[in-house]
Amino acid sequence: MDERTLILKVSCPDAVGLLSRVTGFVAGMGGNLLEAHQFTDSLSGWFFARLAFEDDSQPDGVASYRSGFEPLAREIQADWTIRRASTPVRTVVMVSREDHALAEILWRASSGELNVEIPLVISNHADLGPMVEDSGLSFLHVPMKAATKDQAFREIHAACQAVDAGLIVLARFMQVLPAWFCETYAARIINIHHSFLPAFAGADPYRRAYERGVKLIGATCHYATDKLDDGPIIEQEVVRVEHFHGITDLKRHGRDCERLALARGLRFHVEDRVLIHGPRAIVFRD
Amino acid sequence: MDERTLILKVSCPDAVGLLSRVTGFVAGMGGNLLEAHQFTDSLSGWFFARLAFEDDSQPDGVASYRSGFEPLAREIQADWTIRRASTPVRTVVMVSREDHALAEILWRASSGELNVEIPLVISNHADLGPMVEDSGLSFLHVPMKAATKDQAFREIHAACQAVDAGLIVLARFMQVLPAWFCETYAARIINIHHSFLPAFAGADPYRRAYERGVKLIGATCHYATDKLDDGPIIEQEVVRVEHFHGITDLKRHGRDCERLALARGLRFHVEDRVLIHGPRAIVFRD
Amino acid sequence: MDERTLILKVSCPDAVGLLSRVTGFVAGMGGNLLEAHQFTDSLSGWFFARLAFEDDSQPDGVASYRSGFEPLAREIQADWTIRRASTPVRTVVMVSREDHALAEILWRASSGELNVEIPLVISNHADLGPMVEDSGLSFLHVPMKAATKDQAFREIHAACQAVDAGLIVLARFMQVLPAWFCETYAARIINIHHSFLPAFAGADPYRRAYERGVKLIGATCHYATDKLDDGPIIEQEVVRVEHFHGITDLKRHGRDCERLALARGLRFHVEDRVLIHGPRAIVFRD
Amino acid sequence: MDERTLILKVSCPDAVGLLSRVTGFVAGMGGNLLEAHQFTDSLSGWFFARLAFEDDSQPDGVASYRSGFEPLAREIQADWTIRRASTPVRTVVMVSREDHALAEILWRASSGELNVEIPLVISNHADLGPMVEDSGLSFLHVPMKAATKDQAFREIHAACQAVDAGLIVLARFMQVLPAWFCETYAARIINIHHSFLPAFAGADPYRRAYERGVKLIGATCHYATDKLDDGPIIEQEVVRVEHFHGITDLKRHGRDCERLALARGLRFHVEDRVLIHGPRAIVFRD
Repeated sequence: MDERTLILKVSCPDAVGLLSRVTGFVAGMGGNLLEAHQFTDSLSGWFFARLAFEDDSQPDGVASYRSGFEPLAREIQADWTIRRASTPVRTVVMVSREDHALAEILWRASSGELNVEIPLVISNHADLGPMVEDSGLSFLHVPMKAATKDQAFREIHAACQAVDAGLIVLARFMQVLPAWFCETYAARIINIHHSFLPAFAGADPYRRAYERGVKLIGATCHYATDKLDDGPIIEQEVVRVEHFHGITDLKRHGRDCERLALARGLRFHVEDRVLIHGPRAIVFRD
Repeated sequence: MDERTLILKVSCPDAVGLLSRVTGFVAGMGGNLLEAHQFTDSLSGWFFARLAFEDDSQPDGVASYRSGFEPLAREIQADWTIRRASTPVRTVVMVSREDHALAEILWRASSGELNVEIPLVISNHADLGPMVEDSGLSFLHVPMKAATKDQAFREIHAACQAVDAGLIVLARFMQVLPAWFCETYAARIINIHHSFLPAFAGADPYRRAYERGVKLIGATCHYATDKLDDGPIIEQEVVRVEHFHGITDLKRHGRDCERLALARGLRFHVEDRVLIHGPRAIVFRD
Repeated sequence: MDERTLILKVSCPDAVGLLSRVTGFVAGMGGNLLEAHQFTDSLSGWFFARLAFEDDSQPDGVASYRSGFEPLAREIQADWTIRRASTPVRTVVMVSREDHALAEILWRASSGELNVEIPLVISNHADLGPMVEDSGLSFLHVPMKAATKDQAFREIHAACQAVDAGLIVLARFMQVLPAWFCETYAARIINIHHSFLPAFAGADPYRRAYERGVKLIGATCHYATDKLDDGPIIEQEVVRVEHFHGITDLKRHGRDCERLALARGLRFHVEDRVLIHGPRAIVFRD
Repeated sequence: MDERTLILKVSCPDAVGLLSRVTGFVAGMGGNLLEAHQFTDSLSGWFFARLAFEDDSQPDGVASYRSGFEPLAREIQADWTIRRASTPVRTVVMVSREDHALAEILWRASSGELNVEIPLVISNHADLGPMVEDSGLSFLHVPMKAATKDQAFREIHAACQAVDAGLIVLARFMQVLPAWFCETYAARIINIHHSFLPAFAGADPYRRAYERGVKLIGATCHYATDKLDDGPIIEQEVVRVEHFHGITDLKRHGRDCERLALARGLRFHVEDRVLIHGPRAIVFRD
């Protein structure tokens, strides 16, 4: 990732000439456009854009662009961010007992595909501690019982704050989150659900898929909200199955979907390719 | 389809040596095995097989095999059929206003991919009458109102009997069927639902898929039962969509899924490749 | 398709501020942007954009935009077009003996998915004449032998001119085109090849796919050039196959790929979503 | 994997009654059939079968079945094996500098999806040594230059013999193998090629895919023969790409195809699901 690349993400009520004004702002600052995505949702009358551009000319880099964009942003009533693409996203990973989603994230991060720093891995079980620590990362075991669950999440919240987490990834973390936790990290918690949502939301989706006799199974990467398995969908993946696949086979094929959907969804988020609008996610794929 | 090809479909409680006995029966009759499929469902302890074989030696063809197989079938408590593969399935198609599923069936039948005879097309609207009659087929318009619906289905049932229908295809027929009709034609009514079931069962699935922001849409070919959109699934198809696809776009892409899933599912049924077991369909694909 | 929608397609050498200038032009003319696509090819240093916008304010519609864009186009050295989206593309379809690709185009056109007028269908065989004429279209049979092939294409060229063809679709037309014909209709001949190019270019691809034992087969929709099966690729589709699929089965599954890839590729072309750059096609999908 | 499961793999010239005789043999020995696959290639007149069955009754297990099957095998001129499913396949992995294929194999093996023992990883570069040794495996660095290549492969051959390798996996090993090495390990070397073969056989396939402007890229898992990228194909995987994917993006998406195709292909081999017949592989998938 080039050190000079900046990313502007913006959404606002639609109006004539918006793309021209936003791209004009970048050109006026001396930015050289590398990649531009735009989408107008005609149903809701909303405008979305993501611009990646290169800049040497501004002495303060991101800060100059931010202060320069502010007046226009106010005028068009925009939600917006400008970030340096090379800055990694500080990401806390939460797991239970299964390791495939975690292993996938670790490999993607080490390979450079996923621009994250992982200051901490948290689990409600001790099982994956050795794997995490062998990878040179910190592991926090927070046991959970129904009675102490809220207290456990207070501890998790404190740990996330302590490491300045910008993103929380639920990599097959098999616990429902308290509403207050979802709100605190709104649009910053990414979950991988092991079904093709909205089919088989909730527990034990592969067993239910087997019993229903579906011919395709899948996985869904989405933002967590306080409603279970219901937040904006970032990415989905499916694979064809047949009658001879038992529940164990569905889980095996499903893990491949989970790993792919999570890896892609995470990358889209980390590269500022996702803009949330109500229950839907606008995703400028790469 | 070779005139000499016969197809034996059999399911029964599992036992040691079943495949050997069933294939032994065919060999003993002088049948030359062309294609053999077998599946044992270890969860339910059930055995399924489909054998396609060629025979010249039996003077009465199908009849000889049927009477030859009966004692073994009784002993192993089998559900079974033996049919000549070249005999077309007499198929009544039911439609409402949209023509894509019907057009697909007509082309598949005319191309020889789908071994059906279509003695009648029935609709609750008059719109597709000209298209059907231009294709040289008979069209029956049965208007439906809530108050007269049961009477309308009595008329449809009589028409199906009159043409000796062996199969009824709901090719985007947008009406819920009466329970007695589903029971009368159990395992002989095939529906194409315009979503990836069990997601978005019921009305208006593309609108709901849009609102939920899914990243893949699909279609499901299944047997109709008296529970809406809930019978055994024969085939499913999906296509990737993005945020820029509005409801009209989802419908357009969805039609491609519907056409493919219906065409394949129908072919599987017509070629005796589907064995139903409770809520699941065993499908020996080709 | 809304009568007021116009589409601007533009490609030119990359420069700072291009998107801002082009979108600024549309906004300045009073056009309301509906859909904007942009791509910069950093390898070749080339800029591509497609803008769909709505306009009531210009008295002469397309003509005003064209004359308004000319000075900017000259300055940025652009290849460009501005068209009214609702104007159908006059399309000549060429076929040999197989009807599936033709049937697909006819259904797509009749359903409104494909904005074409088909003034003529041409074939080197008489077989599909009745089907074409039953659809209410004109059919021209131009027999071809090696010795008279060039003369036959002179006749085809004259027929295309007579109906003012803007596009020629080779819907499984099994003849190599003369180089002069490809040049005359450069970027206006679309072919569907029955393999996943560049694998199995040339004759009899399904047989070769079978012999090679591939596990996926496909189809490729591309612009025809004077080099066989080698022009810019617009769309491809694949389907998984297994060892039990013989050549006839591969052809059957392959037809589904051919129909989908051709239908989508045609739509992309007809909606001005394709920009050609050397051997590659930029496709702004929908 | 149940300790009692045995797998019989058999191929031979087709004849009437073969499946009955082979399944009859298993039943006669007291084996309880778990899974049966059969395929008759009508073009070549060849019969293929794979039977998985459970047995407690034979005192010597595999040995009893082997000696019991021999007379029948001789009579039907069969190529055949009987193996205990739970016995891991001793697998040597060969790599160059890229780690994704190796990481995938290691995770699949550790997760229990892939029943292999990996006594040794060999590379022509030192780069992946630490990763291998951190995983607790042995690493052998065999530098290669054109002049000493044959000698290097003699060393590799000796190392494979020393660890009693039953399978060699080329996990992105970027060197052409000598013909004698391919012959020595015929049908026991599995390669992952980073294209959808036969497209882009040979070097640098992603660059060539980019230049050709294909809309789908892929990977191929196949047996290595002395003809480069040409042995029987076990598994292929593809992913849709667009014009905005540069060569680096194609490599990134391609790695996902490579990992999946290799993991599945390996599993099929290790579970005795692959039967080779000339240039084609019969694969009884699971």
